[in-house]
Amino acid sequence: MRIDVAFLPAEVKEYDLSGKVCVVLDIFRATTSIVTAIANGCQTIIPVASTEDAFKAAETIDAALFAGERQSIRIEGFDLGNSPYEFSAEKVLNRIIIMTTTNGTIAIKATTGAYRTLIGSFINARAVCQQAQQYGKDILIVCAGTDRLFSLEDALCAGLLVRLLQEGAKEEAILNDAAYGALLMYGQVREAIAEMAVNSRNGERLRKLGCMKDVEYCLQTDVVHVVPEYSEGRIMANSPSPGR
Amino acid sequence: MRIDVAFLPAEVKEYDLSGKVCVVLDIFRATTSIVTAIANGCQTIIPVASTEDAFKAAETIDAALFAGERQSIRIEGFDLGNSPYEFSAEKVLNRIIIMTTTNGTIAIKATTGAYRTLIGSFINARAVCQQAQQYGKDILIVCAGTDRLFSLEDALCAGLLVRLLQEGAKEEAILNDAAYGALLMYGQVREAIAEMAVNSRNGERLRKLGCMKDVEYCLQTDVVHVVPEYSEGRIMANSPSPGR
Repeated sequence: MRIDVAFLPAEVKEYDLSGKVCVVLDIFRATTSIVTAIANGCQTIIPVASTEDAFKAAETIDAALFAGERQSIRIEGFDLGNSPYEFSAEKVLNRIIIMTTTNGTIAIKATTGAYRTLIGSFINARAVCQQAQQYGKDILIVCAGTDRLFSLEDALCAGLLVRLLQEGAKEEAILNDAAYGALLMYGQVREAIAEMAVNSRNGERLRKLGCMKDVEYCLQTDVVHVVPEYSEGRIMANSPSPGR
Repeated sequence: MRIDVAFLPAEVKEYDLSGKVCVVLDIFRATTSIVTAIANGCQTIIPVASTEDAFKAAETIDAALFAGERQSIRIEGFDLGNSPYEFSAEKVLNRIIIMTTTNGTIAIKATTGAYRTLIGSFINARAVCQQAQQYGKDILIVCAGTDRLFSLEDALCAGLLVRLLQEGAKEEAILNDAAYGALLMYGQVREAIAEMAVNSRNGERLRKLGCMKDVEYCLQTDVVHVVPEYSEGRIMANSPSPGR
């Protein structure tokens, strides 16, 4: 069994995805917000690449909510931005959300063709690893990065996931270089993730925008147990059994 | 002053290179071999992308040596492969070498337009950092990676270079996320670089090819003090003063 990490979505095209379970990470903040929304009873999230695609998708859906950001700021006229605090049960319960984000959507769509695509984060780390392992397939963790550059917070979460997957594996897993790298990074800062992540480009941007509450929320580990799955253009709660 | 790391040549295009000193790393084995060749008195190395380009470059140069590998194996009919042990003074003193390698050449050429491009490795780590710092410019460390994927040994060397550059900096350097990541990886394994690098994809490939001597050679730190520079299509020993 292999555990691979891609630090950027562009690296995903080097892999044959057909036999892989992908886990997508965009810690600040897309995948953390998606996990939060699904945990709060959101029915479906439809990730789209652009504002235009969002309006187009809405043509066939009644009463969808629009969510999205550009450069960490809510798109004008949209119902929700990209802060996990906006995806409360009060707002999202049983709703369909059409979402566009700068990096997260690109990373999710890069896994098209995978055996499964699961949505991961620090907040559902253990749950997503357990789910990913149930299929008995190789696993590829896909970091969204930021504007086509490496993101520290995504890599640190990837390191945590590799560690959890190793612990849960029945046999010794084969790692690629990026999986080793992510493990090393996580091992070096595990007690000080918050301190390190605030130094990251995204952490600093969010701090400057007064979103430190978001940063702290996104760095909590294992506070929810849902695993969103992306399939045929939609993100929904993963069915409890893999044998569907 | 900024210290940035790019884990892959593809990331370099996100940067304005005009004010940057780039340091290119392809530890197993291209940049280690280039540093060795220049240390052993090689006059000039001309990096080219393909075997065809190598023969084309040779048309205007008398008695050049051909060096290069594909998948770690010497190209048929070439004088030299990519092992640093092949670039002995006996073979390379005062010679011109036309070199094509799978990843190193791509990384070097990706820095075209930079203020300076220096060739780095573990074996000239301190020397290349001192030279890079003399220009008073921002520094971008470019890892070659392997076949468009992250390489652990390049990232570990980048981490060592970031640490040396921080120690040598007159002011506090601003790091990008990849520079933080490289520092963390290096910090976690610094006493066990060899052990870790052998697990890497390239390390394992070289081990399987019976090239463990090369792996050990490439992981030595600060055994030579030359700094090759790439300029106008050629690699030569860097002039001692930056004010040329």
